[in-house]
Amino acid sequence: MNAKRQERDLLAGVRVVDFTQFEAGTSCTEVLAWLGAEVVKIENPRTGDPGRRLPRGRAPGEPWPDPYYFHMFNANKKSVTLDLKTPRGLELAKELLQKADVTAENLAPGTIERLGLGYDVVQSLNPGIIYCQIKGFGEGSPYEKGLAFDMIAQACGGPISVTGEPGRPPAKPGPSFGDTGTGMLMASTILAALLQRRLTGKGCRLQLAMQDAMLHYMRTCFATQARTGKPAPRRGAKSVAGNNVPSGLYPCKPGGSNDYVYITTSRANPEHWRRLLKLIGREELLGDPRYDSHEARLGHEKEVDAIVSDWTRRHTKEEAMRLVSGVGVPAGAVFDTMELMNDESFETRGILQVMQHPETGPFKMPSWPVRIDGAPPSLKPSPMLGEHNAEVLRDWLQLPASAIDALHDDGVM
Amino acid sequence: MNAKRQERDLLAGVRVVDFTQFEAGTSCTEVLAWLGAEVVKIENPRTGDPGRRLPRGRAPGEPWPDPYYFHMFNANKKSVTLDLKTPRGLELAKELLQKADVTAENLAPGTIERLGLGYDVVQSLNPGIIYCQIKGFGEGSPYEKGLAFDMIAQACGGPISVTGEPGRPPAKPGPSFGDTGTGMLMASTILAALLQRRLTGKGCRLQLAMQDAMLHYMRTCFATQARTGKPAPRRGAKSVAGNNVPSGLYPCKPGGSNDYVYITTSRANPEHWRRLLKLIGREELLGDPRYDSHEARLGHEKEVDAIVSDWTRRHTKEEAMRLVSGVGVPAGAVFDTMELMNDESFETRGILQVMQHPETGPFKMPSWPVRIDGAPPSLKPSPMLGEHNAEVLRDWLQLPASAIDALHDDGVM
Repeated sequence: MNAKRQERDLLAGVRVVDFTQFEAGTSCTEVLAWLGAEVVKIENPRTGDPGRRLPRGRAPGEPWPDPYYFHMFNANKKSVTLDLKTPRGLELAKELLQKADVTAENLAPGTIERLGLGYDVVQSLNPGIIYCQIKGFGEGSPYEKGLAFDMIAQACGGPISVTGEPGRPPAKPGPSFGDTGTGMLMASTILAALLQRRLTGKGCRLQLAMQDAMLHYMRTCFATQARTGKPAPRRGAKSVAGNNVPSGLYPCKPGGSNDYVYITTSRANPEHWRRLLKLIGREELLGDPRYDSHEARLGHEKEVDAIVSDWTRRHTKEEAMRLVSGVGVPAGAVFDTMELMNDESFETRGILQVMQHPETGPFKMPSWPVRIDGAPPSLKPSPMLGEHNAEVLRDWLQLPASAIDALHDDGVM
Repeated sequence: MNAKRQERDLLAGVRVVDFTQFEAGTSCTEVLAWLGAEVVKIENPRTGDPGRRLPRGRAPGEPWPDPYYFHMFNANKKSVTLDLKTPRGLELAKELLQKADVTAENLAPGTIERLGLGYDVVQSLNPGIIYCQIKGFGEGSPYEKGLAFDMIAQACGGPISVTGEPGRPPAKPGPSFGDTGTGMLMASTILAALLQRRLTGKGCRLQLAMQDAMLHYMRTCFATQARTGKPAPRRGAKSVAGNNVPSGLYPCKPGGSNDYVYITTSRANPEHWRRLLKLIGREELLGDPRYDSHEARLGHEKEVDAIVSDWTRRHTKEEAMRLVSGVGVPAGAVFDTMELMNDESFETRGILQVMQHPETGPFKMPSWPVRIDGAPPSLKPSPMLGEHNAEVLRDWLQLPASAIDALHDDGVM
């Protein structure tokens, strides 16, 4: 690791005791890990984070290594196994919490308290700790005991109501915005709390519900409702606000299921429409009153879309993107996961990096996409279950190797 | 403001010079503002942030106050107007940057450099500054000069390819995940960089592309591709991974466009299916080999969905959610923006708060949804254009009122 790399470990020295599982919690603590914190997953010695047990795509009977899903949300972390239902396991967890700056969990409602690691207990052990909880629904909500996964958050928090085609049933946004979208809000708040703690020495309790987090991403939809007086609608490929024409997905050759280009013209810049007309060879429409203002085009959306589609159908999505973008009009091809994975630019720029995992082998995946002084942080493998038992108990608690062996023999680890 | 409130200003004392516009940038600096930083928008004296000029929903000819869209992304900030194309305006911006901890911009590619405020200039003025740039595409990408809005990021970064119904054109996820989803990644990184700076005194340069940010939210889709060897598909209301049955949207009475409940059963917990069968009165199917394992149900998805729908159609979405969730199975009604806005629980818990804006009047909107020691930060109004000219130039630069009057007279502010 060279000096430049080390500078990117912005959170070097920050210790996190991590009880998170699946994605809403793990995506949050993984941000801290990517940015250089020492994040220690505390896992059940038998099964670990249930995210390790999701389908891996192997034939039945073959060994079941950790799935890609697990690697995605646990890169750069460490793993310590502790049976929290044993007195010694619980005691060790408490000793680790006394050494930690941050702890986080997204277990089912009531679980962390039943384990004996609720906020009051941990705060009394370590008044400086940032104690973080992610749940499906907020404390005091009528649904506060309800379980949630990504899709439940996207249903109850609004995203599903505004996704899909008009007049048809709603669709779920494909990405796991309900999970990772929640984790990101908690990550920022943890870091702000750490900044305050460096001044005051005091910790705090942070709580976030996945349903509540979704409202944060729905703000343009709430603005549309405030403007129109009606619930924000589903508009297929078009934006919920519906202010701009042309704006939408336009079909490209050769007509495959993702052969579309998104083109949008901004109301804030009337030049977009004129540039587009020139590019597509329809200068005769410059100044045509049917199309010359945003208001006029709003009343002729179908005709405008047909004018644009006539041109896009003669180009591939990549050509259309390059040409439209080249004249200063916002445009983007619809890329699928395979096209993205095969685009070398992402690997060259460090946005996709290769995880060298002892069981999975080399595996290319998204890293933290923010460049810090020119490059994103380096990707390290997700931990094997219990991989860091000896290292963490030695470094944090000064336990000798013999004591760690005994813990394994006793089934505590 | 009581003592408890003040403790929630985690970033008190942090100063931000904010050149952001629209949403990808403003959503980022707004996080800092909500968490207590002093965020000063630098705006063009004539039009301000173009986000102020989006449609407000008034009749033509009426005054055009800031739209709801603007309030959403600029709460708790201050506004200073400076004409950066005048020598004195540029000089004042540089003086403010010398006093700042963070600066951020998401102007079109090349704009900030043409204004004379590129990274090298600002870093030499203030070596401790965290200098942040958000663009549509990454430096070194073939599209690096391209403009982007939310929908362009969602097209080029993958989300649109996995959203919509199988066999139909793709749809855009309705929420502005492309914008706010980007802003959230930059916000965390800024705060981590501030933590490092408190130790080293050194600033850094942070760069994030909206296309790259979308890959971060696409990780479950990339995991699906890695497992199946095919691009992640569109699956309508179902999850892209397609591992769990039953899982999806089920129709409820009275059959309106958002009368659906999302029900999902986790492969990690085989009890979910058994609990559901008992609840819906289909105990006779317990142990039926067609349905008794996840693998078996995957082969009978249509029949399973019909069994669940037969029951959900007899309930409203709220009833279905309450009953299914009540037996420990993840469930969530599809709520639209109006239902969410009218649900009192959000206001009681501080997740929705009322902005008291001098022109718009009281306006209920989402606040930062993380509870800090029990409550989210307090919402303050978005600034009027130039509202804080005198205050900021006095507090940061010790300029007297007479100097500020002269700047107004000269058209610099």
